[in-house]
Amino acid sequence: MVDILHRIGVQASVDDVYKTLATVDGLAAWWTEETQGDPAVDGVLQFCFAEGGFDMKVLESEPGQRVVWEVVDGPSEWIGTHVRFDLSQEDEFAIVLFRHEGWKEQVPFMYHCSTKWATFLMSLKRLVETGTGEPAPNDVRVSNWH
Amino acid sequence: MVDILHRIGVQASVDDVYKTLATVDGLAAWWTEETQGDPAVDGVLQFCFAEGGFDMKVLESEPGQRVVWEVVDGPSEWIGTHVRFDLSQEDEFAIVLFRHEGWKEQVPFMYHCSTKWATFLMSLKRLVETGTGEPAPNDVRVSNWH
Repeated sequence: MVDILHRIGVQASVDDVYKTLATVDGLAAWWTEETQGDPAVDGVLQFCFAEGGFDMKVLESEPGQRVVWEVVDGPSEWIGTHVRFDLSQEDEFAIVLFRHEGWKEQVPFMYHCSTKWATFLMSLKRLVETGTGEPAPNDVRVSNWH
Repeated sequence: MVDILHRIGVQASVDDVYKTLATVDGLAAWWTEETQGDPAVDGVLQFCFAEGGFDMKVLESEPGQRVVWEVVDGPSEWIGTHVRFDLSQEDEFAIVLFRHEGWKEQVPFMYHCSTKWATFLMSLKRLVETGTGEPAPNDVRVSNWH
């Protein structure tokens, strides 16, 4: 099993960052505008993109601390993997330790998703710090795979 | 052993991307302005940042195909790891498969470096496509660790 890891620091409180991870409006403002579903524990969130989408079951959602999803539908490489956001406060920075864990192998699509997650996490940072993120379909293009 | 992976596509030729990986001027224009040394095979490149630096021994350098470095000095977590850039052409995109491989464990510094590598690879893409990158000390800030 192999994982994608990222760390960002947002100049905000962990509560402000948690809201962007645990509400449909928050997620739609940094990841994809086409977000719907139930962000409560045991709920399922649907995220749509031009290239396809992902359904995530919410496994954990602890205000100011952590959000964990399990991928229950989407590209075959994603199904069964977990996406974790662990939050902590370091002075004026809300730190997000991000893991997309449980990939079976290091396929080129995993390389791509790693770079895309970084740009989306920077979109989350920008959203909280400035009020404006860069969610799909207006996300940062990193390659021919978008 | 665990690895950082990224994939970007640059609207250019693999030869143009190779130049940014295999010359001091090219590296200084997307990673850090404080770059010096010998980019030939068996040479050592020195990269300096405000927070410290890295010395890389060039293991492979194949025009239009690949650049591989071994970290010979720098933070303890980096020493002995390898940094690889594998190039291929897909239509009008030069694809860079990036690996920073051989980390001993998934420490928070690895999460941080993964996000920083993504933003630096986007700087490389911007450099080749527009003529202007975002090398240190004017690099994208991702957190309190810069």
